[in-house]
Amino acid sequence: MTTKAIFYHAGCSVCVAAEQQFAKALDPQRYEIEVVHLGESKDRLAEAERYGVKSVPALVIDGQPFHINYGASVEQLR
Amino acid sequence: MTTKAIFYHAGCSVCVAAEQQFAKALDPQRYEIEVVHLGESKDRLAEAERYGVKSVPALVIDGQPFHINYGASVEQLR
Repeated sequence: MTTKAIFYHAGCSVCVAAEQQFAKALDPQRYEIEVVHLGESKDRLAEAERYGVKSVPALVIDGQPFHINYGASVEQLR
Repeated sequence: MTTKAIFYHAGCSVCVAAEQQFAKALDPQRYEIEVVHLGESKDRLAEAERYGVKSVPALVIDGQPFHINYGASVEQLR
């Protein structure tokens, strides 16, 4: 049984570093990770905001948002 | 062969949530996680700053700092 984790990013260097060293560090036996590029998938912006995502990169685990460092605000991606 | 990861926190609610859902989500087969309470272990403050940690909670993976949400600045812990 895996928990859903969504990694939201915007392709920036801060995001890529976080994805490489962070999202991929999660235990694959427990977490199913989806990577969403909000700059390309603008139709996912509203969903990210509903989870409380304010900036990218961010990881939503079990519906709870965790902001990792700071790449860009979600507002800047519209 | 595991990579060293250090989770710095200060016991705040933001930190505890991050520890429960984030630090513990890392793959234990690849990461050896040490949890350091900087409010209690002030002798570790300089080390955290050398890694570039500016606020807690933060996770240092392979020497690189990732700040997760925002609990308190390291300066406030002195």
